[in-house]
Amino acid sequence: MKENEKLKLYELSDINYLKVHGRTTGELSPLTLFWTGSAIELNAKGSELWLEVEVDYDIYEPWISILVNSAVVSRQMLTAGRYWVCVFRGMNENETKNIRIVRDVQAMNGDESCSLKIHAVKFDGEFLPIEEKPYKIEFIGDSITSGEGTVGAKPEEDWISMWFSAIRNYTFITAEALNAEYRVISQSGWGVLTSWDNNPHYNIPEYYDKVCGLLTGEKNESLGAFKQNDFASWQPNVVVVNLGTNDAGAFNSPEWKDEETGEIHKQRLNEDGTPNEEDLKAFEGAVVIFLAKLRKYNKNAHIVWVYGMLGTPIMPAIYRAVDTYIKETSDKRVSVFQLPNTTDETVGSRCHPGVLSHKKAAKELTEYIKEIITK
Amino acid sequence: MKENEKLKLYELSDINYLKVHGRTTGELSPLTLFWTGSAIELNAKGSELWLEVEVDYDIYEPWISILVNSAVVSRQMLTAGRYWVCVFRGMNENETKNIRIVRDVQAMNGDESCSLKIHAVKFDGEFLPIEEKPYKIEFIGDSITSGEGTVGAKPEEDWISMWFSAIRNYTFITAEALNAEYRVISQSGWGVLTSWDNNPHYNIPEYYDKVCGLLTGEKNESLGAFKQNDFASWQPNVVVVNLGTNDAGAFNSPEWKDEETGEIHKQRLNEDGTPNEEDLKAFEGAVVIFLAKLRKYNKNAHIVWVYGMLGTPIMPAIYRAVDTYIKETSDKRVSVFQLPNTTDETVGSRCHPGVLSHKKAAKELTEYIKEIITK
Amino acid sequence: MKENEKLKLYELSDINYLKVHGRTTGELSPLTLFWTGSAIELNAKGSELWLEVEVDYDIYEPWISILVNSAVVSRQMLTAGRYWVCVFRGMNENETKNIRIVRDVQAMNGDESCSLKIHAVKFDGEFLPIEEKPYKIEFIGDSITSGEGTVGAKPEEDWISMWFSAIRNYTFITAEALNAEYRVISQSGWGVLTSWDNNPHYNIPEYYDKVCGLLTGEKNESLGAFKQNDFASWQPNVVVVNLGTNDAGAFNSPEWKDEETGEIHKQRLNEDGTPNEEDLKAFEGAVVIFLAKLRKYNKNAHIVWVYGMLGTPIMPAIYRAVDTYIKETSDKRVSVFQLPNTTDETVGSRCHPGVLSHKKAAKELTEYIKEIITK
Amino acid sequence: MKENEKLKLYELSDINYLKVHGRTTGELSPLTLFWTGSAIELNAKGSELWLEVEVDYDIYEPWISILVNSAVVSRQMLTAGRYWVCVFRGMNENETKNIRIVRDVQAMNGDESCSLKIHAVKFDGEFLPIEEKPYKIEFIGDSITSGEGTVGAKPEEDWISMWFSAIRNYTFITAEALNAEYRVISQSGWGVLTSWDNNPHYNIPEYYDKVCGLLTGEKNESLGAFKQNDFASWQPNVVVVNLGTNDAGAFNSPEWKDEETGEIHKQRLNEDGTPNEEDLKAFEGAVVIFLAKLRKYNKNAHIVWVYGMLGTPIMPAIYRAVDTYIKETSDKRVSVFQLPNTTDETVGSRCHPGVLSHKKAAKELTEYIKEIITK
Repeated sequence: MKENEKLKLYELSDINYLKVHGRTTGELSPLTLFWTGSAIELNAKGSELWLEVEVDYDIYEPWISILVNSAVVSRQMLTAGRYWVCVFRGMNENETKNIRIVRDVQAMNGDESCSLKIHAVKFDGEFLPIEEKPYKIEFIGDSITSGEGTVGAKPEEDWISMWFSAIRNYTFITAEALNAEYRVISQSGWGVLTSWDNNPHYNIPEYYDKVCGLLTGEKNESLGAFKQNDFASWQPNVVVVNLGTNDAGAFNSPEWKDEETGEIHKQRLNEDGTPNEEDLKAFEGAVVIFLAKLRKYNKNAHIVWVYGMLGTPIMPAIYRAVDTYIKETSDKRVSVFQLPNTTDETVGSRCHPGVLSHKKAAKELTEYIKEIITK
Repeated sequence: MKENEKLKLYELSDINYLKVHGRTTGELSPLTLFWTGSAIELNAKGSELWLEVEVDYDIYEPWISILVNSAVVSRQMLTAGRYWVCVFRGMNENETKNIRIVRDVQAMNGDESCSLKIHAVKFDGEFLPIEEKPYKIEFIGDSITSGEGTVGAKPEEDWISMWFSAIRNYTFITAEALNAEYRVISQSGWGVLTSWDNNPHYNIPEYYDKVCGLLTGEKNESLGAFKQNDFASWQPNVVVVNLGTNDAGAFNSPEWKDEETGEIHKQRLNEDGTPNEEDLKAFEGAVVIFLAKLRKYNKNAHIVWVYGMLGTPIMPAIYRAVDTYIKETSDKRVSVFQLPNTTDETVGSRCHPGVLSHKKAAKELTEYIKEIITK
Repeated sequence: MKENEKLKLYELSDINYLKVHGRTTGELSPLTLFWTGSAIELNAKGSELWLEVEVDYDIYEPWISILVNSAVVSRQMLTAGRYWVCVFRGMNENETKNIRIVRDVQAMNGDESCSLKIHAVKFDGEFLPIEEKPYKIEFIGDSITSGEGTVGAKPEEDWISMWFSAIRNYTFITAEALNAEYRVISQSGWGVLTSWDNNPHYNIPEYYDKVCGLLTGEKNESLGAFKQNDFASWQPNVVVVNLGTNDAGAFNSPEWKDEETGEIHKQRLNEDGTPNEEDLKAFEGAVVIFLAKLRKYNKNAHIVWVYGMLGTPIMPAIYRAVDTYIKETSDKRVSVFQLPNTTDETVGSRCHPGVLSHKKAAKELTEYIKEIITK
Repeated sequence: MKENEKLKLYELSDINYLKVHGRTTGELSPLTLFWTGSAIELNAKGSELWLEVEVDYDIYEPWISILVNSAVVSRQMLTAGRYWVCVFRGMNENETKNIRIVRDVQAMNGDESCSLKIHAVKFDGEFLPIEEKPYKIEFIGDSITSGEGTVGAKPEEDWISMWFSAIRNYTFITAEALNAEYRVISQSGWGVLTSWDNNPHYNIPEYYDKVCGLLTGEKNESLGAFKQNDFASWQPNVVVVNLGTNDAGAFNSPEWKDEETGEIHKQRLNEDGTPNEEDLKAFEGAVVIFLAKLRKYNKNAHIVWVYGMLGTPIMPAIYRAVDTYIKETSDKRVSVFQLPNTTDETVGSRCHPGVLSHKKAAKELTEYIKEIITK
């Protein structure tokens, strides 16, 4: 192999035009990508570019997708270690390439060792400014929003990183269609009030105001995951909340028991199979509180609560909660939008929405958001 | 990171059920994957599997795609060196996964250093038998068959490995649809008589009988690329030849001159812009000779000459040549089939057929071959 | 022309196996088809069949579509007069054809002369039994459900019968997909509380219990349109209500004034452009009352309120109303389902959902109803 | 019914801006529409328009489709008699409507009584000029080009007019896509040399130079069907010949015997199931002669021989024949183009290409012709 002797090392902090996507601490030495869909973006005029990553995990390894001029060219597992990944080579040194390296797997509450850091870049050219996009969107959700099931054959059942994608995902597709910058806050299995299995601690709202509060462990603490997020630095035009699917599932799951405290939680069903009203009220209350929290941090955003990619069993409760919030606050910049259900044709692996379902949802959601942001 | 201590090292030759796709020398220590679409396949019952590759090149690096249960899960550049690539980890150890690791880039005539070898596998489970597919298809072609342009944004113009794919390719898609095993013999820019730029040495037929005769250099010689291919070991039911696009292009390209010998070649145009008849006859002669060569090595195959994904300017010459061959030999198991042209909607990068064009061509070709093999 | 001398005249009442679709009075001498989608169905083993119609109107003529073995073969305007329409001729006399002659235009509140009667059939064969379908669905709606805009070029603006279709319509497409018998109750411009232009008398609920109560004039009275409908004779499994679009429109339309009484009605907007709460409450009240009326007449049906093909501005009010109804009655067999919005790609004539929008809505609705009726 | 008292009677010859499509004798009192796709076109600024037709047949009745502003609004059987058909009514009298009334059924060689004449128009407005289209295309073919099987359920087997359509037809769809005026010369079952059942008299070339020479009987003679066609008055840019499917079928059909003369014809198969060479040569000869005839009458047209919607068994013979013609005449404005085959998904009634197959063929053909006419 011929070495490219023109390659120069750049610490991330040395790069004049670097765009970081997704919530981070602001630290660049190194940069930690916590959330799915988080990324670094470069406009690189040169022939060859490498990226130095540092990867760790006990169970769930991170993956990345690489986009060149908005086309996906690579998707790969990142195994543990600190090493260089080649992003491109042999290209025309006089052409500017828009490059995105995107974390393809959600933040992993279940593996405190899991981390993906970016240290540096080797490059033989010049970095150029990156145009600001006209809109910003934040997506908040569960496994659907994490893109679980968008990769892999339908019968796959393992719960592993491989089946996740940030790209074959309604979040990415919607943002691209709207020419918007976007961020994702998501965790498989979690809900507004509880997780699918009734764990009241696995709820997104509680951790929303931290950089990546749903992570665990000392390492993540030292990486700054539990710091207050700097909302002022990135104010979205639209916040899309895609939660409720796991809250609905909780009604059909066994009770959760905290082995230490003996604490028990269960969203109950009535004898006729419909949700217990009191428990549904608790869910609605959690929605109302979350909306207030979202508004606190996103003063000017339109908030859209979306639901339906895996059915609509508690849609009435979502509408009631949003009604209540609006009545209580007179904040009318909140709405509900039903996404198309997943079918046998559009299902992916792990019984989750497949890429066809995500494309369909993105198409509907794009039209809906377009009306909001162009008004 | 927790090490998986159950991983055991397997030399390829130690694996009881290993399937190698594509023309090789038979050597497994290591195995060299010469052609695009060549691959190793395993039925792996275990939780974690790694592959040891050895990669070299001066200019054009190889890429691979990884398929798990026939779904693409990864596609990545392989940079130079000898190292381990993780294929999967964390999976249910009691389930059998069908795994294919596929070379995604064509054999590279233009880079004698380019090589992709597979040495070994690390695995924590058991290999199981791989079912034989009912049909075998060989595809012979140029850049179209190499999948050039099936990756990347439309404006891309660099001639680099990144834009090639063996998977987003009519060869793979057709073979999957027909449940067939397949091989690819292909080289961008080459033709039956000459290359697109009139080089008479860049023709596929001349090298057809070697394992990978269009490669160059001592390293490839030592890897066995220039050995006679063992046709007896793999007899296809159908041979698909997708050549002629570069032969047609030669009429519109400048003459080729051998700088050493002064030898000149040029497929000429008449003054009215139509191809010179004598030169067209030379092309037809080359087709006839190639058909005879194909028949020599593939006694029982139906041979289909396909053409049209980038227009049909010399289709009449192809029909004439096939007619001539049939008349001369009474071998009627040869036919011609027009593939759908690429349009603005279906074009990919580098002005080549994009993945939509390949899907469309595969759909038509699948129907055509189905009639042949089920008769 | 050769006369077919084997043709025999059958009064409708003479036909042993005649199926009438849509609400009628039960009268067959002649049969009046009041509603869009109403039809007669025959299983006809013979070569030639004619239908005697009697048609009248001052403004809006009826149209019919003819289906042979579920394929549309003809769609035609029916001009005024009493005459014979040929349904088919020259067919194999030994094959049984399933024939439907379908009224393609809504009941016309605005033209008291408009009527379509069927007197008799001429036929040269034998009528055979018609299989019962496993499900019955009733659709209630406005112009969307009347299929307004599903025929004609996009720029068409005339309000005429030509642009209506019962077949290029989500009602028909959904019923076919579910193998269900169906009926339609619909009127362009009408709502639950008022019409699009605030007329409080143009509401569907008020006339729901009559055969075709929204018609006017003595002729329709004598045809039995204002008789109480015989609900016991046809009990649907599902009632789909697609109303609200005109009620929402009323907020943006000028007030309605009864020229005789001076009565005025107007659904008002707040200064910030949102609907006046009191007026929205009136709409919700009308929904609650209509649901109770629907339940009274359809004891075992699941009632689905659908909405969204022309946007979802008052969806929260619909959800609130259905909530209120369920709370007041404990009747849980009522739900709300959002249909996909119409886009630039799917719009038809008169700015209404085109056939592509109807197909899309039908696909989603079919999946939704399938879950209900197969539970 | 209220009569529209403003309607005025216009003999066709009185209409200042009348466009007649399809080959006719030039006679307008009345106008006879012989071929499928033939039509009258009007730009009508007024509210109501009627058409007086005169229809006759013994076996096969004509059908028409009505297009308003290029959208199909009606398709109906025309039963025998002389009567008025309403084209539209109740429209805005100040808007100009483009109206086409199109014969939907092929000229009927098998029914000498079959005729469709147009006498007059009743209208309450003003006729306006009709813009000339930039291109003219002539389509020549068999049942495929007649649109046989594009209407009706898949299992239909009767040979009746009902299953034909000029609109759900690659001819119409291609012409619309290219913004071209077009004519169709076609007959089900006929070929270049013989019909599908070896009748050497049922070939299109023999009758090509007459207005509608393949009709029979005295009535058609008196209507002028057998007059020499006035080619000078309408010179196409492109002639599309879609013949060969029945010539191929003849090889697999029993011999034809002329009961009077004892004359026998049979395109023979070799023992190995391939076509007899001599008979294939006869077909090729017929193609060569037809091409010369087409050129004689269409001096400046590009001639495209298309083939493949029902398979490509004799494509090599077509290529040979076109080659021969080009060599003999040096006329290079002739080419061959393969149309996509019909599949299980795209088949229509009577085992013929369905509307999906026609759409697909039209899409490919449109791209092909676009390249020719824009060069």
